[in-house]
Amino acid sequence: MEAGVTSKAETDLTLFFHPRTVAVVGATDNQKHGNYFLFKKVLARAAVENATVYAVNPRAGLKEIEGAPVVPTIADVPGDIDLAVLMVNKERIEQILIETCARTPKFVIVFTAGFRETGVPEDAALEERLAQIARNAGVRLFGPNTNVNALEIFPNLPGPKLALVTQSGHQGRPVAQGVELGVGITTWVPTGNEADLQAEDFIDYFVDDDEVAVIACYIEGFKDVAKLRRAAERAAVAGKPIVLVKIGRTEEGARMAASHTGHLTGSDAVHDAFFKQLGMIRVDDLDELLDTAALFTRLPRAPGDGICVYAISGGTGTHMADLAAAGGLRLPRLSDETQAKLHELGIADYLTVSNPVDNGAQPVRTPGVNRALIEACLEDPAVDILICPITGILPSMSKIVASDIVDAYRSAKKPVIVIWGSPVTDDEGYRILVEGRVPMFRSFKACVAGVKRYVDYWRFQESFAVEQVTQPRIPSGLETMLAGSGALSEADSAMVASHFSVPFPRSALCVTEDQAADALTKLGAPVVMKACGPAILHKSDLGLVKVGVGFDDVVPVFRLLDRKGRDAGGEAGYEGVLVQELAPEGEEVIVGLKNDPQFGPVVLFGLGGIFVEVLKDVSMRVCPLSRRDAEEMVREVRGYPLLEGARGRSAADVDALVDLICNVARMGMDLRERLEELDLNPVRVRARGEGVIALDALLVRA
Amino acid sequence: MEAGVTSKAETDLTLFFHPRTVAVVGATDNQKHGNYFLFKKVLARAAVENATVYAVNPRAGLKEIEGAPVVPTIADVPGDIDLAVLMVNKERIEQILIETCARTPKFVIVFTAGFRETGVPEDAALEERLAQIARNAGVRLFGPNTNVNALEIFPNLPGPKLALVTQSGHQGRPVAQGVELGVGITTWVPTGNEADLQAEDFIDYFVDDDEVAVIACYIEGFKDVAKLRRAAERAAVAGKPIVLVKIGRTEEGARMAASHTGHLTGSDAVHDAFFKQLGMIRVDDLDELLDTAALFTRLPRAPGDGICVYAISGGTGTHMADLAAAGGLRLPRLSDETQAKLHELGIADYLTVSNPVDNGAQPVRTPGVNRALIEACLEDPAVDILICPITGILPSMSKIVASDIVDAYRSAKKPVIVIWGSPVTDDEGYRILVEGRVPMFRSFKACVAGVKRYVDYWRFQESFAVEQVTQPRIPSGLETMLAGSGALSEADSAMVASHFSVPFPRSALCVTEDQAADALTKLGAPVVMKACGPAILHKSDLGLVKVGVGFDDVVPVFRLLDRKGRDAGGEAGYEGVLVQELAPEGEEVIVGLKNDPQFGPVVLFGLGGIFVEVLKDVSMRVCPLSRRDAEEMVREVRGYPLLEGARGRSAADVDALVDLICNVARMGMDLRERLEELDLNPVRVRARGEGVIALDALLVRA
Repeated sequence: MEAGVTSKAETDLTLFFHPRTVAVVGATDNQKHGNYFLFKKVLARAAVENATVYAVNPRAGLKEIEGAPVVPTIADVPGDIDLAVLMVNKERIEQILIETCARTPKFVIVFTAGFRETGVPEDAALEERLAQIARNAGVRLFGPNTNVNALEIFPNLPGPKLALVTQSGHQGRPVAQGVELGVGITTWVPTGNEADLQAEDFIDYFVDDDEVAVIACYIEGFKDVAKLRRAAERAAVAGKPIVLVKIGRTEEGARMAASHTGHLTGSDAVHDAFFKQLGMIRVDDLDELLDTAALFTRLPRAPGDGICVYAISGGTGTHMADLAAAGGLRLPRLSDETQAKLHELGIADYLTVSNPVDNGAQPVRTPGVNRALIEACLEDPAVDILICPITGILPSMSKIVASDIVDAYRSAKKPVIVIWGSPVTDDEGYRILVEGRVPMFRSFKACVAGVKRYVDYWRFQESFAVEQVTQPRIPSGLETMLAGSGALSEADSAMVASHFSVPFPRSALCVTEDQAADALTKLGAPVVMKACGPAILHKSDLGLVKVGVGFDDVVPVFRLLDRKGRDAGGEAGYEGVLVQELAPEGEEVIVGLKNDPQFGPVVLFGLGGIFVEVLKDVSMRVCPLSRRDAEEMVREVRGYPLLEGARGRSAADVDALVDLICNVARMGMDLRERLEELDLNPVRVRARGEGVIALDALLVRA
Repeated sequence: MEAGVTSKAETDLTLFFHPRTVAVVGATDNQKHGNYFLFKKVLARAAVENATVYAVNPRAGLKEIEGAPVVPTIADVPGDIDLAVLMVNKERIEQILIETCARTPKFVIVFTAGFRETGVPEDAALEERLAQIARNAGVRLFGPNTNVNALEIFPNLPGPKLALVTQSGHQGRPVAQGVELGVGITTWVPTGNEADLQAEDFIDYFVDDDEVAVIACYIEGFKDVAKLRRAAERAAVAGKPIVLVKIGRTEEGARMAASHTGHLTGSDAVHDAFFKQLGMIRVDDLDELLDTAALFTRLPRAPGDGICVYAISGGTGTHMADLAAAGGLRLPRLSDETQAKLHELGIADYLTVSNPVDNGAQPVRTPGVNRALIEACLEDPAVDILICPITGILPSMSKIVASDIVDAYRSAKKPVIVIWGSPVTDDEGYRILVEGRVPMFRSFKACVAGVKRYVDYWRFQESFAVEQVTQPRIPSGLETMLAGSGALSEADSAMVASHFSVPFPRSALCVTEDQAADALTKLGAPVVMKACGPAILHKSDLGLVKVGVGFDDVVPVFRLLDRKGRDAGGEAGYEGVLVQELAPEGEEVIVGLKNDPQFGPVVLFGLGGIFVEVLKDVSMRVCPLSRRDAEEMVREVRGYPLLEGARGRSAADVDALVDLICNVARMGMDLRERLEELDLNPVRVRARGEGVIALDALLVRA
């Protein structure tokens, strides 16, 4: 049994979404006041949940508001309170929250704004006090600075739905409006300032919500990566995609997000790696968020990746197929039987139907023919998914085409997807498609991107397994060495790495000429000699490395390096001269670790030389990582062909390299907080079967 | 005066679009026949042009159809015919065209289909006969296989318009439907099979059409690159953007386009280079084609590239600014004065207004405030363009927001652009924006891409100058050498290249030991020695290059290379041993020429080593090219930082490299048809001020 399948969400939000009793502080019968409308929204939402609502309002003689009983203070609400909703101004919020928490409701929603988001320290401090009050009382707080969207009621459309979690009220709107295009939505959670309950809590909860097929998020910054990881793992195991926009593609965007909501966006590349590992589907724009999430609500697990493009015109089919191929989709050739059948069903003989299928427009003028053609395509075993691009309104056939597509979509056992490529939607055909709830995109490129994500997600999900987050564990004997802070010498860095099966050439740290000469004898000439010490970092640049030292030179080289080493490292920063066996040849790569302030240990990989330094051609993954992650890391750098044997090289030992990456990742997990960074640079990847060897190591302690 | 400004279109299509007399063969009064509707379309279009229409129909007694006089044969049409429209079936078309051409109309439109597009040789042959008949008569033919869209009448909206040229009828539809969003369109030209008149002719003609501000094209393949170049140059000089989709991003797409219309799509990378050089704006999808072309119809020349993002919510502004920065747009900080003014006008003090501007939603509830805020932003000297992203329908403010944006757009001296990010368009705010004809995008990313193209185009246009296409000109003395076909030896290749100022190390081709020894003395030891001959291509791989040969070795090395050279090259393929001065150090690059079957000579550039071979990191331009083109070629490769002095190198002589590329391009133009390809590999780019030097050359004659 998988770890994530049976485990439950950390925070049970059932009573947040389905409260039995709701108390609303600040409810009013004054129709000129915003709270009146807010209260009516609460009532409407509560009605859906069959919840009892109490209006809290101290005005004498006020008995009920819109049918809800009024009590003067929250203390007067009878029985248990599941959800308290606070609509009071900033000046009163602290006192009201104290009174509210005295009743220990399960959840409190604070609509009030003007806290952390203002950037004023006093406001942030007040927010922290609110969080503390709730925490002390064991009450979970939602907000502050959330908004009315949290109360939105979505029509109960048939079929799977998406749940929407957004850290900006406004930015969820285009997705929520998808409901008007027939996209099923269960709820919209605008998380506001997240003084307590966070986006991560809701993502986690929705994994267990059977009504929710997809979790769509608009995120400025995650606060709790560990929680997110657990939620995302459970989602991946359950096959419930998380589609998200995550702000912070650029430094500029990151800075602005911070100034807007105080969310720290974090390193974008690390986020990308993390999302990739956990199958979280990152998109950049709101239309992509809606379209991609909607696609997952409307289609089952992808049966495969064979795409058939079925078009009314040869031009359309060609264009779509060109973009599909450029976007990484696979268009298999239809079988001769299928092609014959398509012609039989009415497609003129001279038209190309091998895929893309050009139906020539004539057949679609008769109802039912289009459907039969689509079904014939779907029957081809090579076809897993059919895409039907419609570029515009054709008064003579829109209705017939659309109805046939809806019918085919409904009865098909394989996914049918339509593109409505026209900017104009005031058309019967369009309405038929929308009402038929056919998975729809608004451009060819959007469709290609969406379908690629759909296919990739299910391929990812098939082989996903949870990587256990292990406890930190310093190997015995290394405690003292790792206790301090700052860099370790090369010798010590290598010693630590060796504990994690990182192979190095044999070597000896020598503090006298005799030791150096002995070491050379033992290791066999020629050797590499390097000044070694925690303060000696850029050895090559400082002339502190000599390669190919033989018997005649060992003593003078020792003296030189010893003197230069002392100069460079100082008393405490210099340890001696490292005499090292010459390493065998191989492709040079770099493997490293960085302790990300948000994500913890992150493994980095790149090819040596210009690849990392000039091309920034680096892949990364967050620890813990799977062997598949490590394999993908190696393959996704642009220089990968060199490891496969480009330019006349022999193929390198990629398996050993993957092992090394896994070992380094384990090192990251075990040393965790003790580690700031590790650099194995270079590592030589030898020919297949011969392993890898690290030539230098630098470990910096946190 | 620029070459292109005053020159006129090669083909005057005025009477095609504005005929005085139209004869329609195949016109009918039978309302059950498709030709009846087609004829009515002709009549409607002719009415707009005040043209006289004659229906040609042999039926006795038929006097008029829909008010147009009927004549039995085209011979009976009185007076001159500007435009003949043939709606007859394939069996009769050849005879009818002969009769029609006897009247020498200026233009003939052939709607009939079933020619080259069927892939049947007989059909293609018939099409060629039709073209020949028209050609012989001096009549220009449009089609066959064009369609009714050619007759479409677009409403005469105020302001600049786009003209639409498409090689697929269907694929132009979403663009043409832009008219319903208020996009001004003059005409739609679905060019069909292009037996005679081609997309290139129409692009060329529209450059001179004052009504047309932008030319939007959907292209499967260009046939006449020289014509296209002249048209595109004239368009660039006139500042009339050409926006186009060009099929063939992938091999697969190219193959399919060929099977669909017989258009050859050609090398995609060469197309990209050509479009870049001529400022043609390539987009991938139809929505981009419409949105980008529409943007150019609605905005004047870009005043600069300073973008201000003005949003109703901090989240929206942040997201948009993030995508804008990622997409290469520049968001300057607003001045303190502007920021103070924005706060004065009603934006709360705690909101960020430095750019992006977060107006906090409150101010936009009052009509006029939004407009004043937008105008305040536009008054900032750092701001050139303002983008206002709207993510969704806000019942409480949509109308006010939209009206204010329209007002600001109309009165502003700088571009104002809006994003309607909601999937739902059934809203008053949306209608106000559409009716106000504000430049509009449907997603953040689409807007970023469109605005980037807009800014880039005008920057390109500012400094564009026509590169003269010169006549081929073989340097005297090289005629014989270049007369044959196949490869030249290194010595001969270098000699040809030297005529175009390509610098090589000094060298001597030696056929005896004594000559080799003499050469060494003259050049100074050590030297490089290589077996040389037209059949000796992969010298290094075959061990036919010896570097660093001194006095002692020159004779034995000569003997060795001479023997191996004879073996490798054979009698005719071996010339002798090239003794070459050792070249100075430098960054190794590759400069080459390829004679593209469609575009003619193309210059290629890349860095040596892994860059070309593993990373395919190559730039190219079509000859003739400008110095700016050459500079861009150098800068656009990913490895460029190496030439700037990355990794501790000294900065390389990029100026000399640019000179070299220009010289190679001139070589391409001068040798033209005689050349299949040229490889200068490697070329060493020395430190700044020290020039470049080519170490090897291979010229293959066509």
